[in-house]
Amino acid sequence: MSGEHKSLGHIRLTSHSGGVDAPPIHWGAPTAAERGPVIGTTGVRAHRNVIGTHSGSYSVYRALAVAAGALARDHRADLTNTSPTDHIGPYPQWGDPKAIVSLDPWGATVAESFPDKIAAGYDIRPTIAVTKAHVILPEIAEAIEKGRLVPDGKLLLPSGAALVTKAAVEPVWHLPGVAERFGCSEAELRRVLFEETGGMYPELVTRSDLEVFLPPIGGQTVYVFGDARDLADPTVELTARVHDECNGSDVFGSDICTCRPYLTHAIEECIRGTQRGGVGLVAYSRKEGRALGEVTKFLVYNARKRQEGGDTADQYFARTECVAGVQDMRFQELMPDVLHWFGITKIHRLVSMSNMKYDAITGSGIEVGERVNIPDELVPADARVEIDAKMAAGYFTPGPVPDAEALRKVKGRGLE
Amino acid sequence: MSGEHKSLGHIRLTSHSGGVDAPPIHWGAPTAAERGPVIGTTGVRAHRNVIGTHSGSYSVYRALAVAAGALARDHRADLTNTSPTDHIGPYPQWGDPKAIVSLDPWGATVAESFPDKIAAGYDIRPTIAVTKAHVILPEIAEAIEKGRLVPDGKLLLPSGAALVTKAAVEPVWHLPGVAERFGCSEAELRRVLFEETGGMYPELVTRSDLEVFLPPIGGQTVYVFGDARDLADPTVELTARVHDECNGSDVFGSDICTCRPYLTHAIEECIRGTQRGGVGLVAYSRKEGRALGEVTKFLVYNARKRQEGGDTADQYFARTECVAGVQDMRFQELMPDVLHWFGITKIHRLVSMSNMKYDAITGSGIEVGERVNIPDELVPADARVEIDAKMAAGYFTPGPVPDAEALRKVKGRGLE
Repeated sequence: MSGEHKSLGHIRLTSHSGGVDAPPIHWGAPTAAERGPVIGTTGVRAHRNVIGTHSGSYSVYRALAVAAGALARDHRADLTNTSPTDHIGPYPQWGDPKAIVSLDPWGATVAESFPDKIAAGYDIRPTIAVTKAHVILPEIAEAIEKGRLVPDGKLLLPSGAALVTKAAVEPVWHLPGVAERFGCSEAELRRVLFEETGGMYPELVTRSDLEVFLPPIGGQTVYVFGDARDLADPTVELTARVHDECNGSDVFGSDICTCRPYLTHAIEECIRGTQRGGVGLVAYSRKEGRALGEVTKFLVYNARKRQEGGDTADQYFARTECVAGVQDMRFQELMPDVLHWFGITKIHRLVSMSNMKYDAITGSGIEVGERVNIPDELVPADARVEIDAKMAAGYFTPGPVPDAEALRKVKGRGLE
Repeated sequence: MSGEHKSLGHIRLTSHSGGVDAPPIHWGAPTAAERGPVIGTTGVRAHRNVIGTHSGSYSVYRALAVAAGALARDHRADLTNTSPTDHIGPYPQWGDPKAIVSLDPWGATVAESFPDKIAAGYDIRPTIAVTKAHVILPEIAEAIEKGRLVPDGKLLLPSGAALVTKAAVEPVWHLPGVAERFGCSEAELRRVLFEETGGMYPELVTRSDLEVFLPPIGGQTVYVFGDARDLADPTVELTARVHDECNGSDVFGSDICTCRPYLTHAIEECIRGTQRGGVGLVAYSRKEGRALGEVTKFLVYNARKRQEGGDTADQYFARTECVAGVQDMRFQELMPDVLHWFGITKIHRLVSMSNMKYDAITGSGIEVGERVNIPDELVPADARVEIDAKMAAGYFTPGPVPDAEALRKVKGRGLE
């Protein structure tokens, strides 16, 4: 071990409760001061009041940077000029411990929320960042060209650029609340999280006094079209989509699913809705391949394409279940939290056909008006299998639901 | 705790070495049988021969599925029909313990590589999956329309669809080899990985006998244009790009950087190169925001836009370093592994201006011919700051390098 790290002393495998230097967290308290800061620093162990650390999975890269000697262990972020571009909240939901259990509502404004603690030397980092951007999608440029969208020079420029506010949100889990969402005890959740990850974070089971977990998973990005403050006003028409990551379609345009077409259709609807005086929101969650990951997803593709009779809609869900043990691992139970963070109480137009998403949103107390599904002409040829299987399984459709006979006939491309 | 889980017995916080049931791993052995399988199952603890488990971060979602009662703990994947669509390797690099340290070369073919172990009841899962797809990108359709690409009906269809083979690759780290790449001792790497993640996987420091780690981070997806077997033939012209994830540009088309334009330009080059008898490869790595994560990335955007004098190219790297402590956390040291997995020894046309990528690739023994940078007309207006800062910092450019005076003048948009 190099001299540089010698001074670190003994490795401590476990931590102990009762550190006097760690400020308590009172989840769901009405003000930031009463709630207390989330401290996931790796610098001063005695200050930590959570399990895990910041930046999700990227803490592993941070560790590599330290190992390579490129990053000082005690680096403190200089947060000058980084505060949110838009004023968001606080909303009543921020003070409701049941409304938000998987993000820190005060995570975007740590500098103004906890100035005394920061002055006292606590390393308190933002778990949410809010900025502005111009986004240019070829599909939006095409919508302008075809006359479906008209640039207004403010929200939508003649270049095709749409002006947005966007927020990146890291997961911050209040374990008692997360357990309640999944209908299990907190002890069971902690134990399964530890054991089924192969032994990640033993503090999950040894430190029941630490109720907050920063899991090493991807978070969410939320794109807002129009004024973010309007999201909390139920009289302003809100067009929204909650979208789960699909790299193969979202980036590369694979024609086996409808992910990118649904996303760009939602963005078009958001822009149009905002132009008529409303507001739009697209929440993008890092849940690749139904949160099974891409390796499992590709295994399922092969099993679908090679099964006897070919890739038919009636076997669509079965093939995933054979490989993964479940049809879908995405669990929408935590997804509405980010909607509550924006103070949303009503979504006028939900661009989604997913019953799981709809049920999670309405079950969390948000009213949903109209449901908007993807127009038939946007469904890629090979994605008919997915869409028909989903409609038959009870996903929302304004049109006819395919029966068993029809599902057997809807067949995707083979592998060759 | 519910009855369902009562039978699980005591929670074991630590594991012990010397389990007789865990097959050994001889990293870099010339055959699969001699190397031995990677076993990251959470089912039978005595069979495990790695730290961590499968599916990267998504093991956390798997745990949630178990906690919610949706997934049986002992579910075994039915791998019928899931094997790779393309025959890849083995190549000499697979038997070189230094050439590949961050993925399992035998990870795509576990069923044929370890049939006896699977028959004996070991839960051996693929860490690589290979499938085929049709990808449809609006930028490629535009290239056809403008005559830059001509459909051939085989690789590129008149619809704009390009036919690809694609592989999803999960990280499998041989810790001694990873430490060597980063120039630190294995003990130091293990300790820092444990401590700087806030205590993830204590086995990193307690089980020095376990040399393989499945880190909970995102992996890679590799898109191959043409015949994947040609990648290993240095006489076939290879056009390649190694691309690091940038959700804001890759999916949403933010104009502050060149990520998606670079990616689609590379795909166009890959298609053209393949059409003239070559082969193409795009490797996409999940390293969002220079592996700092999106929250840090957005904080940096705000600091750039708000600093005195505005968002100028001469301050581009400084702002990231202020917030993150490093200019870049991506570390290209492990990136070439996937190229060696495909048996690549020569890249004729590397579509990238990154010196870090170039140095990592050539340093790993792969010859690079021409370097191809992004055409000026594809650089979005607000991304000039990034490109000029990178060229001045030594990134590859065939044109003039901006001087200090020029860098002060190149300024991006403000926030309002």
